Amino acid sequence: MGIVVVGTVAFDTVETPFGRGEHVLGGSATYFSTAASFFSDVSLVAVVGEDFPEEHVSFLQSRSIDTAGLQRIPGKTFQWSGKYGYDLNEAQTLDTQLNVLMEFRPDLPESYRDAEYLFLANIDPELQMQVLEQVRSPRLVACDTMNFWISSKPEALTEVLRKVDIVVINEAEARQFTSEANLVKAARAIISLGCKRLVVKRGEYGVLMFTADSVFAAPAYPLEEVFDPTGAGDTFAGGFMGYLANTGDLSDAGIRQAIVFGSVMASFNVEDFSLERMKRLEFCEIESRFKSFKALTSFRDIASL
Amino acid sequence: MGIVVVGTVAFDTVETPFGRGEHVLGGSATYFSTAASFFSDVSLVAVVGEDFPEEHVSFLQSRSIDTAGLQRIPGKTFQWSGKYGYDLNEAQTLDTQLNVLMEFRPDLPESYRDAEYLFLANIDPELQMQVLEQVRSPRLVACDTMNFWISSKPEALTEVLRKVDIVVINEAEARQFTSEANLVKAARAIISLGCKRLVVKRGEYGVLMFTADSVFAAPAYPLEEVFDPTGAGDTFAGGFMGYLANTGDLSDAGIRQAIVFGSVMASFNVEDFSLERMKRLEFCEIESRFKSFKALTSFRDIASL
Repeated sequence: MGIVVVGTVAFDTVETPFGRGEHVLGGSATYFSTAASFFSDVSLVAVVGEDFPEEHVSFLQSRSIDTAGLQRIPGKTFQWSGKYGYDLNEAQTLDTQLNVLMEFRPDLPESYRDAEYLFLANIDPELQMQVLEQVRSPRLVACDTMNFWISSKPEALTEVLRKVDIVVINEAEARQFTSEANLVKAARAIISLGCKRLVVKRGEYGVLMFTADSVFAAPAYPLEEVFDPTGAGDTFAGGFMGYLANTGDLSDAGIRQAIVFGSVMASFNVEDFSLERMKRLEFCEIESRFKSFKALTSFRDIASL
Repeated sequence: MGIVVVGTVAFDTVETPFGRGEHVLGGSATYFSTAASFFSDVSLVAVVGEDFPEEHVSFLQSRSIDTAGLQRIPGKTFQWSGKYGYDLNEAQTLDTQLNVLMEFRPDLPESYRDAEYLFLANIDPELQMQVLEQVRSPRLVACDTMNFWISSKPEALTEVLRKVDIVVINEAEARQFTSEANLVKAARAIISLGCKRLVVKRGEYGVLMFTADSVFAAPAYPLEEVFDPTGAGDTFAGGFMGYLANTGDLSDAGIRQAIVFGSVMASFNVEDFSLERMKRLEFCEIESRFKSFKALTSFRDIASL
């Protein structure tokens, strides 16, 4: 089977200079699984409260996402509220209400436990570890995290980072976690924990992927209209893992292509609030933007001068 | 003949978290011409005071830079003093002493007036215009500027931008000049003034080059040791124009290669204070790093999924 993702399903209230989304569908597992569903089977592990409308579950199922692992428990769904200024690279969190997330004990349906690809989206590292332990022999495991866990649960987080193949985090988080201002040095420090690859997300500046002995740089797609960057990182990860699960090609060349597909998916997601752009996205648009990325980055080699 | 550059020759005092350079050789024309000299003939137009040591002139001449246009007049050489924190993308200016720069009236030696390539480095836009008017029929003219001229002489600067082929500026300056937060929109606004291409420098995030109907993205080279970013933008421009003058290839493919050579030169320059790295740079290192840029950015195309 394809990908299992554990993360959050949330209600977001987001304000940007270009508009406002009130109590809209959000959460790391939501963005990830929606993006990944364009390429692969995805099964979701998350929790929601009694207030979570059936319409959102139907949307996920319409994308062929397996929601057998979506627990519904008494209480309210996790809520996040944030605001972006004209510099759309960083959100200011206005309010976080964990609600049912505090009671979340991931328990994977039996059918999930043979997953080949596992993504531990941004969530308490102790929960990430519980999920990791339930999947028998995944071919590839990747994880994300955030500044909150870096400062509040560094040991649990370090344990997770030691056990995954690919770490996907923001530039500022890489620096924060390693206390190292230079990104190349920060990357080396994280890779030395044991993962094979580190993918550093840099918002509108794109992505750098480090291995022990190589670096790959992919730009973000220059867009004239960016409405809402919420979920861009999770959408990137969903496109990235989705493409890997689709092709099964874990060579360096295959993984570089996956980075570009992740960037393509993120570039669409920021074009509208919540998952609105994903809802009307066609596969031919994905292929077309991949080709635009190729045109964006291509330059002629030299023989010698 | 090759390139003429007008700009500053200066004494810099620079402090970074990694060290301090006191009263070292600097200035936009110095960095530009040194980088360009690896690829092409360069002739320099600038002014220095009586305190400017012969040793620095000898260095420029050792790089085969034509210094016939380097005026020496009574007074002190232009001095800049600045400081960088761990975020090496932005300098904090501590002190600026214009000195002889206030008396500078560029008067090009007759041999300069047939230049094919002209670079108007960061200097008063009125002086940039005076130089532009003295060069008879350049094949390509490019210019740089800075926030100070954007706020103090916007009309004179706009006149310059209307008359050049390529504008090379920082990301923040592109936004400031156009009062437009979105970089793609800012680029369109600048190109609509009349230039053919806009090159936006983004420090450690590389470069974006816009034309009316295309964009090219080049990353900065990820370096483990960055000692001093001073002059990186001028060194980039020197490598860029130097390579164009070397090949004479002004096709889109040729200009993209030149962007990468500019990025290569900038990546070396930040590895040491002042022009120290340029002084010991070998051409084979430039070619080798160009190949590293190719490896850094390459990914496989897709046929279709």
